[in-house]
Amino acid sequence: MTEESARYTRGQAKMRELFGEGVDTAVKALAERNPDLARFLVEFPFGDIYSRPVLDSKTREMLTVAALIVLGYAQDELKEHIRAALNVGCSREEIQEIVLQMAVYAGFPAALQATKTAAEVFAEREESSG
Amino acid sequence: MTEESARYTRGQAKMRELFGEGVDTAVKALAERNPDLARFLVEFPFGDIYSRPVLDSKTREMLTVAALIVLGYAQDELKEHIRAALNVGCSREEIQEIVLQMAVYAGFPAALQATKTAAEVFAEREESSG
Amino acid sequence: MTEESARYTRGQAKMRELFGEGVDTAVKALAERNPDLARFLVEFPFGDIYSRPVLDSKTREMLTVAALIVLGYAQDELKEHIRAALNVGCSREEIQEIVLQMAVYAGFPAALQATKTAAEVFAEREESSG
Amino acid sequence: MTEESARYTRGQAKMRELFGEGVDTAVKALAERNPDLARFLVEFPFGDIYSRPVLDSKTREMLTVAALIVLGYAQDELKEHIRAALNVGCSREEIQEIVLQMAVYAGFPAALQATKTAAEVFAEREESSG
Amino acid sequence: MTEESARYTRGQAKMRELFGEGVDTAVKALAERNPDLARFLVEFPFGDIYSRPVLDSKTREMLTVAALIVLGYAQDELKEHIRAALNVGCSREEIQEIVLQMAVYAGFPAALQATKTAAEVFAEREESSG
Amino acid sequence: MTEESARYTRGQAKMRELFGEGVDTAVKALAERNPDLARFLVEFPFGDIYSRPVLDSKTREMLTVAALIVLGYAQDELKEHIRAALNVGCSREEIQEIVLQMAVYAGFPAALQATKTAAEVFAEREESSG
Repeated sequence: MTEESARYTRGQAKMRELFGEGVDTAVKALAERNPDLARFLVEFPFGDIYSRPVLDSKTREMLTVAALIVLGYAQDELKEHIRAALNVGCSREEIQEIVLQMAVYAGFPAALQATKTAAEVFAEREESSG
Repeated sequence: MTEESARYTRGQAKMRELFGEGVDTAVKALAERNPDLARFLVEFPFGDIYSRPVLDSKTREMLTVAALIVLGYAQDELKEHIRAALNVGCSREEIQEIVLQMAVYAGFPAALQATKTAAEVFAEREESSG
Repeated sequence: MTEESARYTRGQAKMRELFGEGVDTAVKALAERNPDLARFLVEFPFGDIYSRPVLDSKTREMLTVAALIVLGYAQDELKEHIRAALNVGCSREEIQEIVLQMAVYAGFPAALQATKTAAEVFAEREESSG
Repeated sequence: MTEESARYTRGQAKMRELFGEGVDTAVKALAERNPDLARFLVEFPFGDIYSRPVLDSKTREMLTVAALIVLGYAQDELKEHIRAALNVGCSREEIQEIVLQMAVYAGFPAALQATKTAAEVFAEREESSG
Repeated sequence: MTEESARYTRGQAKMRELFGEGVDTAVKALAERNPDLARFLVEFPFGDIYSRPVLDSKTREMLTVAALIVLGYAQDELKEHIRAALNVGCSREEIQEIVLQMAVYAGFPAALQATKTAAEVFAEREESSG
Repeated sequence: MTEESARYTRGQAKMRELFGEGVDTAVKALAERNPDLARFLVEFPFGDIYSRPVLDSKTREMLTVAALIVLGYAQDELKEHIRAALNVGCSREEIQEIVLQMAVYAGFPAALQATKTAAEVFAEREESSG
């Protein structure tokens, strides 16, 4: 196995841990649009970064949720990472607390928008578990 | 004691926990420039938000460090919160790990700039403990 | 009456002045999603900041419209504040003039997007007064 | 012919070159919403800037695509400029390569979002040529 | 006189009104670095936009101060426009109030940074009038 | 040779082509501060992205200069890439033209700041060739 495919395999495993098995379909869909971006996404953020020790998956997802709230424009991506945060043990209360805290650093419009996005993810979970 | 001054007192105590006793001088200096902003800063982010349960101080500081790396323009503020993160139990390795992860969400220029800022804080600590 | 509830009451009154009585429903909906954010929103921006003297409501709304055009990603929030600006005496010509001026500071994409958002608010007013 | 109308005429010709004849309808629609912004848009970006020598239209559109990916919030505008880039000789591969490179400077969320926007433009072309 | 030079002359007059006669030196220095940017700056923001009716100079400068606080990275430019705001009748209290309000929309780091920048401008005025 | 070290070697060669041999010292200095970020920087942006075909080095540097002007806060990084752009065949006129065009997408403050940064790089070249 080449070093390169080791990075891909590691990234793929990490993505499944964070997002669930369904992520393979999403990566495949991305690969049809921009194959190299799909490969880099698996290898670099997930194979290289999220797979490192020092920070656990829950902490990493909380940091990413904070980052995406601050960016403001990437609500689809925020939705994915709120799902991932819940998957790896973050509670709804913790997500809402991150949203509150980001009002201090990115302003209330960012927090209001993230509240709406988080509510959509929470509603999905209600339905699927209902 | 009024409710209002309770928020101020709570915020002041939290700021001392995070930034050390020296923060009183910084707040006083800010109050000479914009007294109401100084008061709101103590009361809202620190009295209302950081003093809440659900997330501990270390987690909050890590989230704030992530947020400030993403904002990019607020390196002075980032420096203060890297100091606070170290004060409440975050290791240098954890700070550097947050910087790495933010390269994924805010790009390499944000991460390179934060690396320089973090190195300045780490160097201060060397000197003062040297 | 505690100081805290005084801030809430003052914020609520200011929000009704700016957005109309209907805002109570919006705050209630927000409170179901993130109750503390709803409370902070009423107390801090509206109870503490917008209720201060020095700047009148029309000037404050014009500044907020400018800020939201620059942020770019918060078009729902911009819509609310264009409505508020009109409610407190800002003319359509003044809104459009702010949009024009922001092309200088945030670029043409921000101005084009805000033009579309403003047009949607203006159309609502036509209909409701039609 | 006044100097002013020379700028307008030059800008209009440049916009037709970049976006196709249909752009006249879009400018007219904008002019109904904010006539001065419509005029400034034709005169300044297109009459003054894009009409200059030194950089050719293809290079200019590639730079604008990069800029809009970084801004993140202006996906409608990005769509227009991906269309323009294709119109003036940019290949799909080049567009996708710009998206990849911007992952380095604005992060993966910006690149993922731009991939989706680019795919929508590419699909339009399939249909219209199908 | 051509239409083009009318725009330049109008912009130059507006810049002198806002920034004082010293602005001619600054424009000349800019023109040595990028002559076309200098010309566009005089003609478009100041000749075309600030010279329009509907909003007076004081209101325009307040909006620009708000916009630059939100942008965050342009503190030199913010300094120039705080000077201009003071020149056209804005009080220090009004500047500080804008800073406070922007904490709501762009977060506390933006407000803290702007407070420092405003304090530097206020200190200059003390000295020159001392 | 492992695949991993092939990426590093390719990235290092590309960085030397763009920034000159002196870049090795800069990477070494970064590696002392955050060794993994240094490695990822060499491997991902330069080993993976800039080393790809489709876009040549000059085009890539022009796109990066545009991206960094839009980001606004990363002037040190912008300086490095203006140097790189000049190294791979971009003329000063082309750099200034990119700055002008970005005024349209990121506003005049971004363009004014980039003009100052570009002038500093141009002045270095005068001195070293003087």
